[in-house]
Amino acid sequence: MNLEKLFSPQSVAIVGASPEEGTVGSVLAKNALELGYKGKVFLVNPKHTEIFGQKCYHSLAEISEPVDLAVVAIPAKFVNGEVKANAAKVKNYVIISAGFGEIGEDGKARQAELAEMANANSLHIIGPNCLGIIMPGVKLNASFAGGMPAKGNISFVSQSGALAVALLDIAKERNLGFTHVISIGNKMQLSETELLEYLATDEKTKVIGMYLESVKDGQAFIKAARKVSKLKPVVILKAGKNEKAQKAISSHTGALAGSDEITSAVFKKTGVLRAGSLEEFFSLIDLIHNSKTVPGPQAVVITDAGGVGVLTSDAFSGKSMQLADLDPKVKEMLREFLPEESSVENPIDLLGDSHEDRYQKALETVAGIKDVGAIICALTPQDQTPVGKIADVIIDFKHKTDKILATVFVGGERVEEAIKKLSQNGIANFGFPEQLINALDGYYRWTLLREKNNKLPEQVINPKRREYAAKIIAGAKAENRKALYFSEARELMEIYGVKTVECTDILPEKNSLPTKIKFPVVLKVDSDQVLHKTDKKGLVLNIQDKKELEKAVDDMRFNFPGSRLVVQPMLPGGLEIIVGVKLDSVFGPVVLYGLGGIYTEYLKMVDYLVPPESIGEIEESLLSGKLKFLFQDARGQKNYNLEELAGTLLGICLMAVELPEIKEFDINPLIVYNDGKSGVAVDVKVII
Amino acid sequence: MNLEKLFSPQSVAIVGASPEEGTVGSVLAKNALELGYKGKVFLVNPKHTEIFGQKCYHSLAEISEPVDLAVVAIPAKFVNGEVKANAAKVKNYVIISAGFGEIGEDGKARQAELAEMANANSLHIIGPNCLGIIMPGVKLNASFAGGMPAKGNISFVSQSGALAVALLDIAKERNLGFTHVISIGNKMQLSETELLEYLATDEKTKVIGMYLESVKDGQAFIKAARKVSKLKPVVILKAGKNEKAQKAISSHTGALAGSDEITSAVFKKTGVLRAGSLEEFFSLIDLIHNSKTVPGPQAVVITDAGGVGVLTSDAFSGKSMQLADLDPKVKEMLREFLPEESSVENPIDLLGDSHEDRYQKALETVAGIKDVGAIICALTPQDQTPVGKIADVIIDFKHKTDKILATVFVGGERVEEAIKKLSQNGIANFGFPEQLINALDGYYRWTLLREKNNKLPEQVINPKRREYAAKIIAGAKAENRKALYFSEARELMEIYGVKTVECTDILPEKNSLPTKIKFPVVLKVDSDQVLHKTDKKGLVLNIQDKKELEKAVDDMRFNFPGSRLVVQPMLPGGLEIIVGVKLDSVFGPVVLYGLGGIYTEYLKMVDYLVPPESIGEIEESLLSGKLKFLFQDARGQKNYNLEELAGTLLGICLMAVELPEIKEFDINPLIVYNDGKSGVAVDVKVII
Repeated sequence: MNLEKLFSPQSVAIVGASPEEGTVGSVLAKNALELGYKGKVFLVNPKHTEIFGQKCYHSLAEISEPVDLAVVAIPAKFVNGEVKANAAKVKNYVIISAGFGEIGEDGKARQAELAEMANANSLHIIGPNCLGIIMPGVKLNASFAGGMPAKGNISFVSQSGALAVALLDIAKERNLGFTHVISIGNKMQLSETELLEYLATDEKTKVIGMYLESVKDGQAFIKAARKVSKLKPVVILKAGKNEKAQKAISSHTGALAGSDEITSAVFKKTGVLRAGSLEEFFSLIDLIHNSKTVPGPQAVVITDAGGVGVLTSDAFSGKSMQLADLDPKVKEMLREFLPEESSVENPIDLLGDSHEDRYQKALETVAGIKDVGAIICALTPQDQTPVGKIADVIIDFKHKTDKILATVFVGGERVEEAIKKLSQNGIANFGFPEQLINALDGYYRWTLLREKNNKLPEQVINPKRREYAAKIIAGAKAENRKALYFSEARELMEIYGVKTVECTDILPEKNSLPTKIKFPVVLKVDSDQVLHKTDKKGLVLNIQDKKELEKAVDDMRFNFPGSRLVVQPMLPGGLEIIVGVKLDSVFGPVVLYGLGGIYTEYLKMVDYLVPPESIGEIEESLLSGKLKFLFQDARGQKNYNLEELAGTLLGICLMAVELPEIKEFDINPLIVYNDGKSGVAVDVKVII
Repeated sequence: MNLEKLFSPQSVAIVGASPEEGTVGSVLAKNALELGYKGKVFLVNPKHTEIFGQKCYHSLAEISEPVDLAVVAIPAKFVNGEVKANAAKVKNYVIISAGFGEIGEDGKARQAELAEMANANSLHIIGPNCLGIIMPGVKLNASFAGGMPAKGNISFVSQSGALAVALLDIAKERNLGFTHVISIGNKMQLSETELLEYLATDEKTKVIGMYLESVKDGQAFIKAARKVSKLKPVVILKAGKNEKAQKAISSHTGALAGSDEITSAVFKKTGVLRAGSLEEFFSLIDLIHNSKTVPGPQAVVITDAGGVGVLTSDAFSGKSMQLADLDPKVKEMLREFLPEESSVENPIDLLGDSHEDRYQKALETVAGIKDVGAIICALTPQDQTPVGKIADVIIDFKHKTDKILATVFVGGERVEEAIKKLSQNGIANFGFPEQLINALDGYYRWTLLREKNNKLPEQVINPKRREYAAKIIAGAKAENRKALYFSEARELMEIYGVKTVECTDILPEKNSLPTKIKFPVVLKVDSDQVLHKTDKKGLVLNIQDKKELEKAVDDMRFNFPGSRLVVQPMLPGGLEIIVGVKLDSVFGPVVLYGLGGIYTEYLKMVDYLVPPESIGEIEESLLSGKLKFLFQDARGQKNYNLEELAGTLLGICLMAVELPEIKEFDINPLIVYNDGKSGVAVDVKVII
């Protein structure tokens, strides 16, 4: 998709331009005309012949010159007509008008029609129901937000126009600059996914920040995000965490929010940095915007206040990035110019009476330390502190280092001017140490994720395998069943390489029990009507002989007349694992696995896999996730079989992708052993 | 301890006053003289007869009038002499001078001498090595921080002087007012505990905020904090979370940081609100400072931007305080004046073109809803938004409501003036919704903790019980053992009402095995030298008959020559619980309990009890903590015995308090059942 002309148009038409002060049409016209845009601007409104002293066309069609981009702000009912009439000539649209998908049946129909037109005529459409787009690089503000943001390396995509306006106001204060500001509104055609792909190729974009309330096409998003986040950091503030929030979304843009945990799992997998709050969003963007290189694994903190040093240290607690242990030589160099009471541990405490010289020498001393990717200057404004001069020293040092350099000047009035100066000179200041360290750690984790994501496994659907498996499901469907029998599930598992426990069916019509049974055994009801077997007496454990089995079969036939039963060997105790597939409404099938047993729900020791997954990725998930302890040497505890469990999970990932007809799936339990025995799926529920 | 004269002195002497610009002595003198203090100020310095046109005394002794407070800023080596010479006359001191406990042996000796003098002469001393104290109510700045903070209802105690200066600068910007600002320095005598007790009785103090790097006397702190936090909220930012941080502390004030998790447990128990960051600290203080009443359980959000509404909603995720479900009547009333596209769900979305009238009517509509304790106005500054007028409407409404009223005006320049106006009128604004909701929820949780903490259990030491138990320990110590034998531990457990598994000793000198053994059994080595039995073949499970036992005894005697062995019945499987006692260096004995078994360390399903604990508190800890699921009806899962487990934990709490000679203690496992069988301690380790 080539969006060059949409985002760097040579000419723009404002359809619905208006001379009336305060209207959207007037703000749009003024923004296009008065903020330095060098391209041609055409104003369009059938009611006027001149607006702001410039010719006004009655329709887009009337313009004989080429129009690269049309910004449309006319009543919803006229929009489709206007687009249709010009679809051959004008290919790029920003549709500001509301009254589409967000307002019920009429609007939805109108939006569907517009989408079809876009498809049929290869149009590119932003919106409808959006604020517009701003490209400071070409000084084009094609939105009804006032002013021109500074030029810079941030691309910002927002699903809320109002929030975008507020964030631009904050950005101004923080001296943040943009390549693109894009309000996506109903994202009928161009959504986060297409924009991710476009912005990945935009050389001026260093960091992509998004505010999203929903993800339009989960599978496409996963693919794009994986690719893009290898190239540049993608920071997303995804709203809609709890039920109330989802309610607010439904009434806001009519979008459907996926489950929040799955969203987090998808973001993590694809290398997207999820901002937990607006504050985190800004901190990350600000830090990345101002950094020359990506951060290394360690940081050095220079401060004039022990208290702030301690708090900064605290903020590294549990983080991937850590404070560097300073080399004795470095400490010696620091000692040479620092007073005796100062601390040459990291954080380096220059003491409260510190002037700019100590900061300068300390900066020079730590400048060369390898593995240190970030230097943090923390300051509290004591009465004698030359705050401005210290800022100057830091600004000067910025030119001499490639390391990330950021400040934590804690205070109000006394540090205000210095902070302004710092941010004007490309140094992000953070009001409190925790904000900086969180952002720094996020940026560092991105570099790690980026490395991890280097090989994208292809989603390999094996048509033969799928065909064979689908037949089993079709057979059950033909009998109007909602679930597979255990013997069918067992066959399905075999296809995907998952070992299940042996089983012998006892069909309702048979009177004699199977002969070759090795006791002890388990008897289960095998019916799509009985899903929670333990609740309903559908399970008898540890049957010791034939007589006990006969009794158990009689009882169960009484409780579940006409149902199939199965006999399985009673397995030796092992560790119970649960493996399930959740069909997320946004992201599609997601595989989850974790500790099984009766406390599964309470322990919540669960991790997610988002297919496609390679065996390597699955092993890494196992080794770094909540079950990692199974593969570490613990006291009196042998390791479990990593490859075997990874293989089972890979099989389930393949199945989840190949068989979208499976609505719900779980293995509960999968019993695994650490004494050489193979893991075995004991119960497999396949809802179709 | 009567600290009236220390904090509201009629007269102050500045010992070490100096005319020399920029020195601490000159700042102190000017602060006392020039900021409106109405009491008498005496300047003291043997080198001067006049400073700033005012008489200068050569020594404290020379002043014939009464001196309520002496602020001492002379070289450390002269401090003790000066205090000693005047101890009969001057009872209250703020000692600014450094060179005491923080600088090694000499300093420590000097500080010990000073502490002794304080004791012997009933002196009250703040410091040494501190910034000083400020009481805006009497306009006395007895510190070397410049300026006079606004008068208000916050008392702020800081273990870092530099941080206090920075925080006062922030406070100014946020229009926060103080009753006391106290820099406690080395807190030789007056520490957080004494100040908590004093500030609890100060009527003008509504909220106590503390920055602490250590707690001086853990037991005394627990007692005071429990008492005080019933009366008013105590917000503490406690630094020293990780190892690096603790290193920084050691070189900063020489304080010893306790384990962070125990600190959190103690704060929770005592009702203290622990701020996780500087930002949280300010948000809590600011919110409480400006609130007329404590918050109820529900909140209403009014906004002009759906996006901010969603983020605000999100911020309530997992919180105790929740968004109110609006009554249909309220929604109808809102519908009457709001446009159709607006949302009358909570958050109430007034839409982006909202002017002050919609805010005003919405505020009036929700003003009367019972159970709603907080109203939040969120705003994004759209081009047509009358930000200032909306602020006026909110300020006006503040006079008409007792509910907490706070704002989230998201933006930079466009909202700056309005935010200033809001905070000048007692309305706290938060830059981002999450900050406000976190603070609101913290304040609400305080009201819940306060209710819980209504009955303080007394720490009842039973001297007879202690005597009996101590004898067992003394006996083992007399034999130079570091641990109790199992039979002794069993006796100890009996004293504290904990049932342990039966056991039969097999002494090294005996050749014949005990006769009346009911198989199956377990054989264990019982030695203070072998603490991890499973690692070292010191444990044989499931021995079926006498022959097997004889073999096992022979093997174990070979592996552990000369050791005692014990035989225990093999118990039926149940749920494994671990119970331990950790002797924290600051807070004393803390009891921890959680899920046992081989994965204890990985699952970390552990909660803490901080003695003294009542049976009611322990039951509440069980019902609300990580093991709560044991007492809820789960599928196919009977409840465990709450009273029995609480009783066991109470016994261990009593033991922990009565027997400080126990260095380490754990029961691992305590097996509990949900089928009527009593819980049993299977292994009990008592290190003495």
